[in-house]
Amino acid sequence: MAVAGEPPLDNTNTHTNPMEAEAAHGEAAEDLENNSLHQPLLKRNATLSASHLAMVGAKVSHIESLDYEINENDLFKQDWRSRSKVQVFQYIFLKWKLAFLVGLLTGLVATVINLAAENIAGYKILVVSHYVEQKRYMAGLSMLTGSNFLLTLIATVLVVFFAPTAAGPGIPEIKAFLNGIDTPNMFGAPTLIVKIFGSIGAVAAGLDLGKEGPLVHIGTCIASLLGQGGTDKYRLKWRWLRLMNNDRDRRDLITCGASAGVCAAFRAPVGGVLFALEEVATWWRSALLWRTFFSTAVVVVVLRAFIEFCSTGKCGLFGNGGLIMFDVSNVTVRYHMMDIIPVAIIGLIGGVLGSLYNYLLHKVLRLYSLINEKGKLAKILLSLTVSLFTSVCMYGLPFLVSCTKCDSSLPSSVCPTTGRTGNFKRFNCPDGYYNDLASLLFSTNDDAVRNIFSTNTPKEFHAFPLLIYFGLYCILGLFTFGIAVPSGLFLPIILMGSAYGRLLGLAMGGYTNIDQGLFAVLGAASLMAGSMRMTVSLCVIFLELTNNLLLLPITMLVLLIAKSVGDCFNKSIYEIILELKGLPFLDANPEPWMRNVTVGELADVKPPLVSLRGVEKVSRIVDVLKNTTYNGFPVIDDDAVTPSGQSTRELHGIILRAHIVAVLKKKWFLKEPKRTEEWQVREKFTWAELAERDTNFEQVAISKHEMEMYVDLHPFTNRTPYTVIEDMSAAKAMVLFRQVALRHMLIVPKYQGDGIYPVIGILTRQDLRAHNILSVFPHLAKSKAREKQK
Amino acid sequence: MAVAGEPPLDNTNTHTNPMEAEAAHGEAAEDLENNSLHQPLLKRNATLSASHLAMVGAKVSHIESLDYEINENDLFKQDWRSRSKVQVFQYIFLKWKLAFLVGLLTGLVATVINLAAENIAGYKILVVSHYVEQKRYMAGLSMLTGSNFLLTLIATVLVVFFAPTAAGPGIPEIKAFLNGIDTPNMFGAPTLIVKIFGSIGAVAAGLDLGKEGPLVHIGTCIASLLGQGGTDKYRLKWRWLRLMNNDRDRRDLITCGASAGVCAAFRAPVGGVLFALEEVATWWRSALLWRTFFSTAVVVVVLRAFIEFCSTGKCGLFGNGGLIMFDVSNVTVRYHMMDIIPVAIIGLIGGVLGSLYNYLLHKVLRLYSLINEKGKLAKILLSLTVSLFTSVCMYGLPFLVSCTKCDSSLPSSVCPTTGRTGNFKRFNCPDGYYNDLASLLFSTNDDAVRNIFSTNTPKEFHAFPLLIYFGLYCILGLFTFGIAVPSGLFLPIILMGSAYGRLLGLAMGGYTNIDQGLFAVLGAASLMAGSMRMTVSLCVIFLELTNNLLLLPITMLVLLIAKSVGDCFNKSIYEIILELKGLPFLDANPEPWMRNVTVGELADVKPPLVSLRGVEKVSRIVDVLKNTTYNGFPVIDDDAVTPSGQSTRELHGIILRAHIVAVLKKKWFLKEPKRTEEWQVREKFTWAELAERDTNFEQVAISKHEMEMYVDLHPFTNRTPYTVIEDMSAAKAMVLFRQVALRHMLIVPKYQGDGIYPVIGILTRQDLRAHNILSVFPHLAKSKAREKQK
Repeated sequence: MAVAGEPPLDNTNTHTNPMEAEAAHGEAAEDLENNSLHQPLLKRNATLSASHLAMVGAKVSHIESLDYEINENDLFKQDWRSRSKVQVFQYIFLKWKLAFLVGLLTGLVATVINLAAENIAGYKILVVSHYVEQKRYMAGLSMLTGSNFLLTLIATVLVVFFAPTAAGPGIPEIKAFLNGIDTPNMFGAPTLIVKIFGSIGAVAAGLDLGKEGPLVHIGTCIASLLGQGGTDKYRLKWRWLRLMNNDRDRRDLITCGASAGVCAAFRAPVGGVLFALEEVATWWRSALLWRTFFSTAVVVVVLRAFIEFCSTGKCGLFGNGGLIMFDVSNVTVRYHMMDIIPVAIIGLIGGVLGSLYNYLLHKVLRLYSLINEKGKLAKILLSLTVSLFTSVCMYGLPFLVSCTKCDSSLPSSVCPTTGRTGNFKRFNCPDGYYNDLASLLFSTNDDAVRNIFSTNTPKEFHAFPLLIYFGLYCILGLFTFGIAVPSGLFLPIILMGSAYGRLLGLAMGGYTNIDQGLFAVLGAASLMAGSMRMTVSLCVIFLELTNNLLLLPITMLVLLIAKSVGDCFNKSIYEIILELKGLPFLDANPEPWMRNVTVGELADVKPPLVSLRGVEKVSRIVDVLKNTTYNGFPVIDDDAVTPSGQSTRELHGIILRAHIVAVLKKKWFLKEPKRTEEWQVREKFTWAELAERDTNFEQVAISKHEMEMYVDLHPFTNRTPYTVIEDMSAAKAMVLFRQVALRHMLIVPKYQGDGIYPVIGILTRQDLRAHNILSVFPHLAKSKAREKQK
Repeated sequence: MAVAGEPPLDNTNTHTNPMEAEAAHGEAAEDLENNSLHQPLLKRNATLSASHLAMVGAKVSHIESLDYEINENDLFKQDWRSRSKVQVFQYIFLKWKLAFLVGLLTGLVATVINLAAENIAGYKILVVSHYVEQKRYMAGLSMLTGSNFLLTLIATVLVVFFAPTAAGPGIPEIKAFLNGIDTPNMFGAPTLIVKIFGSIGAVAAGLDLGKEGPLVHIGTCIASLLGQGGTDKYRLKWRWLRLMNNDRDRRDLITCGASAGVCAAFRAPVGGVLFALEEVATWWRSALLWRTFFSTAVVVVVLRAFIEFCSTGKCGLFGNGGLIMFDVSNVTVRYHMMDIIPVAIIGLIGGVLGSLYNYLLHKVLRLYSLINEKGKLAKILLSLTVSLFTSVCMYGLPFLVSCTKCDSSLPSSVCPTTGRTGNFKRFNCPDGYYNDLASLLFSTNDDAVRNIFSTNTPKEFHAFPLLIYFGLYCILGLFTFGIAVPSGLFLPIILMGSAYGRLLGLAMGGYTNIDQGLFAVLGAASLMAGSMRMTVSLCVIFLELTNNLLLLPITMLVLLIAKSVGDCFNKSIYEIILELKGLPFLDANPEPWMRNVTVGELADVKPPLVSLRGVEKVSRIVDVLKNTTYNGFPVIDDDAVTPSGQSTRELHGIILRAHIVAVLKKKWFLKEPKRTEEWQVREKFTWAELAERDTNFEQVAISKHEMEMYVDLHPFTNRTPYTVIEDMSAAKAMVLFRQVALRHMLIVPKYQGDGIYPVIGILTRQDLRAHNILSVFPHLAKSKAREKQK
């Protein structure tokens, strides 16, 4: 609590202090992977220490907080006042135009990915099935394995060498970004390109992964690139585009991108909006609801035009139903009150399986991170191993199953089929017979889902092949996700869940009237809810996928039960990945024991406060910037005078490191320590310049003479920082911090008197994370444990 | 800025000061209507002065702010610490149980209303059509008019004499409640009962109003009553129920109730959740999404069971399609890219019409408020006049239209019909002919919508009858809404919009392939979006109503265009009503010019701050309570000592009036001015007691001797109030106030020194409303105007 008149500057220990606030930005992020990290991030529990490093994609990077607060300094106010009506209109129109472009481009990219993946995979399957027909089984195997191997290799090499952040689904990092964590290279042009082509390769290679997660990431990349007017290197410098150059508008645009991505993946416009709202976004406004909805509407129109075009047969091997993955709209759904029991059982077991999957995937990802740390070659080898295993299983396992005779009521064009798509695959069987396991394994993942969801085919799949299928996809689902290719989690879980549902349906047999295909749909829903813990958005996505509103009540029931059951065991898969990656995500609800610690106590265990005077010497500013890693400094006037004439100390506000660096770069120095007029500053600086987040001032050469000069920080100071008094509990402070989306929050004293410093400390994201608080106040953990014993 | 050491107490002028903060609570709200208000609320611009009065329902009442903040005082902390695991589990389980009960009861009530209204109206129509068949036209007219007159009379008398708050839809008041404005008698048992029976009466009377809005209100009433364990007078005092006795949990439960109500009205579970999210709620949490979803799922199950039961024919005149209002699921929707043009035109005109409707309804409501102020009789007469006009028009207008020959391809059971439901009404026509206007007018509103939405009937309705119908419902829609019966806005707008859509469809004729029924649906959607300005929730509601996913893209387009067009002209209908009623609603976005005024300046124009000492004399406390109307007081210790031993002044926190009154009632006085131990307080007070919001201390008799004693306010003081420094702009302060849902916010000085008072002022909801600020700082309005001129 005791704060010295002028806080000392020796923060040499800040880097090791567990309450360290913000990340330094000077070092090159590229070097991190190979050196500097003696301890791999994932070996130890990453969140125990407040590291400013986190896994972004498959790579360890520096992370920083974002500035979602409106920086109300003099320049900003001036800028705002001088904005004309036309500019305001331009700004609003720009937002809508960007939302439109996000939707349009995401829709087009989704089209390209779909076309490419389906055509490559389709051609591959055609050739292999030709070999199988001729009973040249080994040729078929080597053809399938070889092509899959090659496709996987391309995808992995792209990811490993050009954009490591393109690995995985990207959804956790997007979630973190929208929570206020800036992850470098996450939304760049290389990531976008690698994600597109990597996704095509990985999906066409028949790996057990989906294009859904990557599409969400692609949507956000497009949004981010559009928002900043180009790539980091080549940017449009149009004046009106600069209006968007702030973290708030970028956040909104990226939310639009995420919705558009989900919409493009599932052709579910409302589901996309809800997914962004329920799972991805931390802050939400009504206006955003409307704009994301607009983006998804555009996506739907693009996809519809594409489907209309492809129905004329001009899309090569891309079939009619290519996008409508699971169309059960023509099925008459019949269920009664009594069917609630089997439905509840699906949900119950789905919840258990889902949380079990989360638990096991956590273990596998930890193991994989050890392998991935060995270097680029290890990553590639891992991917190729998984690819080989997948190919061999998909080709070999159907041979274990005996052929089934086609139902005589089915026309010969339906059973058996030999082409690329279609149910009742003939595979190695004689004419008139089909191989039910091959119907699932020997096709693209989308087709497999379509087949297993197929209704009015109660006798098509038998228990043994389904069991093999379920077991295989459990293994693949666990071991495919962590490899260095763009991979979504939705499809693996849907595949696993549909097999489980259909198995359960077979087991229940005569007890219920529910169709086998419906069982598969519900099984998939239950496993997704059990693992991802979403309810409303999943429900709407399934609604839009299955195109059947009568399914709604039972889908809701299954989702609610599965989520509740899953929540009893562990966290959602996205939260687990966020924790694994060490991203300092702020949860919506504080831990209960955080009510027992005040922000004043937190400030006491932080390194001493570093503040600046309103008119400060250049040498001290340079000193402070060099010796600390903070991104914000309180500005305090020691010689302030109150309106009533009393000489006193004044808290003027908070200044950002980026703004100080901007001043140093322009060398806007004063010979005398005096305050400047507003117009003088305005002549020199524009708000748009200050919006750049450049904190690197290594190149700025400051002469000895200049070191003795002064800077008037007042015009750059955000005069309205958010403050909390020292008695505020950490729990309440965290809620405030998260609700208004802050980067820095000042702690002010509850006492009032001469000699008391007007600021006690600064709180940042890291200070309010439960883990970090616990590491300094272990007794809170005890009280927590005691609570639990009761 | 200059704050005296001890602020003076002479706040006799507080009642007239426009920046007056909180409402007095002593006076009886019942008397307000007849006396005390020389100026009717709606005559003048209600929001110009910060009145603590507002229209609630059709009545002027006192309003107060709600306490959504967690009051972190010593007692609360103790209470929280002592909660066992079992209690925490009980609390969570209770929340879910209540969400379940809300869904169940709302579903059942919706069933009852549907059954009753449809049976009464059905029987009425049967009898009248019998008279018409016998050509006893005058008997038919008097029968229809008489029964409608009687039903309207019942509904109006119920509302006027027993629950004036039951008038209208109730949605604006619910919106205000969830924004933090407590409106008395809004969610009580009388309101619930009157709303149910009034709704049945009004709907059965054939008035141009819906049961949708009232159902939302009914859902929230059920939620509120369940949450407090019974009516205001007869309450369950179970210990576990007390856990829910706080404004936060009540808020969440009422949000559940609103979703359940929308779901019950439209059988749209996802739409219900989204409606609550987009239109009604101010704060939203992920956990709430899930719980509201659960409530709506229960409603859907109840409704489904009811439909299953009624399909056996046991529900009297309640038909098969009774609940599925607009089933177009079997229609093959065909539209192409070129159809975007007519769809855009629908949206465009719909937006203009919707905003025009808002404008006119505003005028009519102002007129009606003048009539309603004349007394109870005037209200009743107004309702009856509207009822008579409606009845005569509905019966008489079809005679203006010539009969149409039935299409020979239709079976005679379909055309003409004479029963209660059905399209192609015969009415006064010879056999084999039908009267198309009678098909719309001579049926219940639900049936009318079903008929006008009917597809594959392109030639059924002609332009002239549709024009009459549209004109009539424009007039009725404007003049019915304000009468003193429970009335929803959804149905009138749907009726108007569908007529407009179908007319437009006729006009476009050959230019498009879109079905006439689809035109009607889109017309209804466009008018709703143009008037209510919702997008996503409306889209989902329409999706769930029409049961056809292929409509989604064009519905989205229509809604987006109509909302955008409407926004160019005026505010949404709910916002207009909120303003008319004078409810101090805090909008999501501050006015731009609010950045030009700081909270310090606001504090300067407020009446002097009234603060209390930590240990205060009883006489002064009584004095303060009697002479001010504030609901919160800062607690300041003049003789505090910092940890370093400095004698200084300390801001201890903020205390609520209700808590002071609780202390006075228990006469927990001290002989000496000293601080008490925590256990002493805990023996005397429980957290549950302090949760009661009783601020009435008239009955407390305090002797002269007691007046000289002391009270230790420390244990009751919320030690963690939210604070802003004086330089904070009003815009930023408002965002904070709304985001964390506050009732009081303290302004702290930026200066630090002896003699500076640690609190400059208190901000409440009224202080942060744009209108109130403008009335004190007119120059801001000028800067606003100047901005516009640019």
